[in-house]
Order: sequence, then structure tokens, then C-alpha cells
Amino acid sequence: MLDVALLGTGGMMPMPGRFLSSMLLRVNGRLLLVDCGEGTQVSLKNLGWGFKVIDAILFTHYHADHISGLPGMLLAIANAGRTEPLALFGPKGLTFVVEGLRRIAQELPFMVEYYELNRGGEELYQAAGLEISYLPVDHSVPCLAYRFRLRRQGRFDAHKAEKLGLPRVYWSKLQKGEEVVFHGRKFLKEMVLGEERPGLTLTYCTDSRPTAQLPGFAKNSDLLVLEGMYGEDEKKPKAIQNKHMLFSEAARVAKEAGAKRLWLTHYSPALKEPAPFLPVAQAIFPETELGFDGKMETLSFPEAR
Amino acid sequence: MLDVALLGTGGMMPMPGRFLSSMLLRVNGRLLLVDCGEGTQVSLKNLGWGFKVIDAILFTHYHADHISGLPGMLLAIANAGRTEPLALFGPKGLTFVVEGLRRIAQELPFMVEYYELNRGGEELYQAAGLEISYLPVDHSVPCLAYRFRLRRQGRFDAHKAEKLGLPRVYWSKLQKGEEVVFHGRKFLKEMVLGEERPGLTLTYCTDSRPTAQLPGFAKNSDLLVLEGMYGEDEKKPKAIQNKHMLFSEAARVAKEAGAKRLWLTHYSPALKEPAPFLPVAQAIFPETELGFDGKMETLSFPEAR
Repeated sequence: MLDVALLGTGGMMPMPGRFLSSMLLRVNGRLLLVDCGEGTQVSLKNLGWGFKVIDAILFTHYHADHISGLPGMLLAIANAGRTEPLALFGPKGLTFVVEGLRRIAQELPFMVEYYELNRGGEELYQAAGLEISYLPVDHSVPCLAYRFRLRRQGRFDAHKAEKLGLPRVYWSKLQKGEEVVFHGRKFLKEMVLGEERPGLTLTYCTDSRPTAQLPGFAKNSDLLVLEGMYGEDEKKPKAIQNKHMLFSEAARVAKEAGAKRLWLTHYSPALKEPAPFLPVAQAIFPETELGFDGKMETLSFPEAR
Repeated sequence: MLDVALLGTGGMMPMPGRFLSSMLLRVNGRLLLVDCGEGTQVSLKNLGWGFKVIDAILFTHYHADHISGLPGMLLAIANAGRTEPLALFGPKGLTFVVEGLRRIAQELPFMVEYYELNRGGEELYQAAGLEISYLPVDHSVPCLAYRFRLRRQGRFDAHKAEKLGLPRVYWSKLQKGEEVVFHGRKFLKEMVLGEERPGLTLTYCTDSRPTAQLPGFAKNSDLLVLEGMYGEDEKKPKAIQNKHMLFSEAARVAKEAGAKRLWLTHYSPALKEPAPFLPVAQAIFPETELGFDGKMETLSFPEAR
């Protein structure tokens, strides 16, 4: 199971009643945060999932509305008593930007690890139980889309286990992923598990034009979270100029990706009321929903639905 | 007249319903902001006094809760269309800290002027129609108290004006402070004004132990805004350790200063409800009031009361 929450859904500036776009993922009690604009710590306090268990913060890019809340967030995590390392991920410039911001958050009781993602998106990372990959997208500054995979191991296969000649007392250890050595022989979990079962995939992208690679990157996502900066199709010239997406463009990406569902976020401050434009997106991709601050859901593994 | 508003009244971290301590002063439509923690731009939006007319931002010190909102504030001011220079004031380290934070707010349509206040507090500055002086106080890092004077010129003196032999048509120009040259002779406003009248004094200090100099610095303030980090006198050891003030200590400073009124602000996150401790302060200084987010008042010149 994967819990997902939108801490904020605004673009450009925090508004009374609408914080800046940020997404929080939770797997087995560990947290991963995507973007951290001014006020994100307040939204997280409202949600109540805790600060100490944040294992990683990922940045799509370094416009202030996506990272200005970082110093306060680091101090809140410190204040919650974290001592384990915290991983930061982001495009080129991560260290330069974060070291600048940390001039007001210098002393932390945990290590900060920097993962500057500039190798084109071929590599995989792990944090908070999730497999992370990224795709450079098309904004006015270097910007990344992120894909998160929660993998699910195969079922325990008693037939296979019995054939191993390993006492039952070791079976649950093996199933949990521990390595077992018995009579000098090494046993691995794959030896007692069936084929890997379908997991969950979530893709997140704000601050980009639709790109040719994006639907492929988001292929078959269980949930796709995309920006809907402007509701009206008439704003396309503005969307092109400022490198953002319309509701209809986000819906087309979701359709092309074969995603199961689409959540819209990152609304322009001028888009006070997004609801009237939802039908524009739903006409293209019916499973579109409007994001809002505090929108939260638990995604279940496919076969358990 | 001097408008004063508390944008936030919290210390350490922004809370749902209580933003970080920040004070806004308004004189003739121009604004001066003291401290700018995470979320200050949201409070200012709620207040509605505008962003473009902020002429100066002063920092007491560089703990994150007093400056983390600066990048977003600079961008909000830019977005409001300001092109006039913006003055930043603060203790030693101003340029280093702000240049770090500005890595996410690099391109601004206005000049940023840095006034690093490290000459012991003898000099005077001007911004937004106010005369500014400062006093180093006692916190865990360099920290300043600020005093603001709104001076009030003397009344127009028709007797003096008539004796000058200057045609009446020039009188109002002179009174407004313009220099008038008539028949080769230079006339200044002092020539038609009576003695300077009493103006208004406001002193602001958070994040400090009470110091020997503070009451003298705040002498006869019309309004004194001081931190009340802890309500209970039993927290004195903690106040000493963390270099903060108790309600009762703030009240004693106000009494010794001969201030007219005291507002308390900068409450500890643990002090969810400050009201029960107000009597502790009022027993020492009866004119104590509790600050709260959005507390606002117009201070009138003494004789107009």
C-alpha cells in the first residue's frame, strides 16, 4: 500500500487557503516528500504524518515556490529528533542552491546527502521503500518529472520451500528478505517466493510543457499527478510562453500514458476556482480529479482491489 | 499617524493558525517590515496592505524563523511591480545570508541595498518616513532591537511667515518642505514653522534576554513590542538557556522604560494559549496586551488624542 497526500496545490505563490504544490508519499511509515515551497511544514503539521520519518526530499526544480520551505523543513525535521541521514534529490544545481539556503539552517543533527540528477535519467534510486526514476522535462529552467515504483514481491511458495530441505523455522526470515545460512549453504528469499507481483506506479510532473517522452515515462501509472496551471484552452499561448500545462494538455498526457487516474495540481494564483474547468479535462481523460490541499488516498496493490 | 500590524506572533516554527513573528509599519502609505519568516507573505496578503510599497525589510537576526520567508517576499514584491530600490537592514552577516537565500530569487526588477548594522548603534537611518535606530541585544547569535521614530514638524506660524516678506502663494510649498527661492533669497521650512511637536516612538525587540540598555533604548516609547516566549515564571532557567524573555521580564522592561503600552509577541510553540498568563505581565505593567496574528492599530500623535 502507498499513501499519497497533496500538501499544497498552488503555483507561484502561497495563498490564504492554498499552499504551494507539494506531494507526500508514505510506505510502511516512511515518508518521501516531493517539493517543499514556503509553508509546506505547516501543511505537513496539519496532515500529522510526522517529520522525523522523512527519508528523502525531491525537487522538481529550483524556482522558489518549489524549494523556499526547505530551511524551515530541515529545522522541523531536526526538532523532531531525526539523526539518520536525509537524502535530497534534484536536477543540476542542487548543492549550490541548498548550500545557499542552509546559511540559515547550518547545524543539523543528521547528515544531508545530495543526489544531483544529471545523468539523463537512466539510473534508479531507492528511498522510503520506493524505487525512484526521473525524466528531464521542458520548463524555463532544468526540471524533472519523477516516477515512483512500489514493488511487490511474489507470494510465499510452500512447494518451493519444502523442496529446499530448510527447516520451517527459517521460512519467515527468508520471506522477509533476510539471508539464511544453514549447514553451510546460503538461502535467499527468491528461493521461497513466486514471481514478483504487480506493484504500484505513481508519476509526478509539474512545471513543464507536455513532452514527447512524458507519456512513455508515465506508462500505465496507477496515479499520475500533473500540473493544471491554466483551466482555459484559450490560455495556451501563455502556457507555451511560461512553460506550463493546460488542464486539457495534462489530460492528453494521461490518456496517452494509459494511466489509471489523473490528479491535477499546481494551479495558477489567478485560477481561484478550478472546478468549472474539470469537464474540459474529463472530456479527454474521464478519470481526472481535481487536487486540493490535503487530498489524501491510500493506493492498494492491484489484485487486492 | 503610524499604522502598526503584527503579521505573525509565533516563535521557532509556523503553526496552523499562528504565523512567525513579523511586524509591519505604515506611514503615508509606505511600508516597513520587521522580520520575514516562512509564511509572512501569506499574512501580508491577508492584511491587504500591498507588496509594492515595502521600502525596507529589517531583520532582528538570522535564525530561520525570522528570515526564511525572504525569497518568497522578494518575488512577491517583484510580482507586484516594484522597481524602486528595496533596503535591507540587519546585524553582521546580512549580505552573506541574503545572498545565499537569493540563489532562488536571483532576478529582481529592483535593486537590493544592504545595510549591515555593526557600528554599535550610534547612527540613524531613514526608511518609509521613519527614523530608525538599533541596539545590539543578548541572544545566542548577533541580534538587534529596533526603535522607530515618526517625527512631527512644528505648526505653521503665520506670524513668522508674514515677517519674512514672502508672498502667501509660497507658504504651503515651504510648509511641505520644498525650498523656495524668491528675489535671490533662499527660504526653508524652518522659517515658517514653530517648534517640532512630539512624534511617535515604537520599539521592537524579540529574541533576547532583558539587557541593561534595553529600557533606556525604549525610553518613553508610545508602543513597545517585546517577545513573551514563555508565560510561566517557572520557565526562567529555559529562558536564560535559550536567551529569551518571560512575560514578566518583558513587563519589567516596559515599566522601567516608562513605555505607554506593551504588546507581547513571539510565543513559544508550546504556549498554545497565552491568555492565562497575561495577568502575570499586567501585575507588573498594567498596559500589557497580548499580540495575535493580524493585531492592528493606528497610533495617533500625542496631542491629537
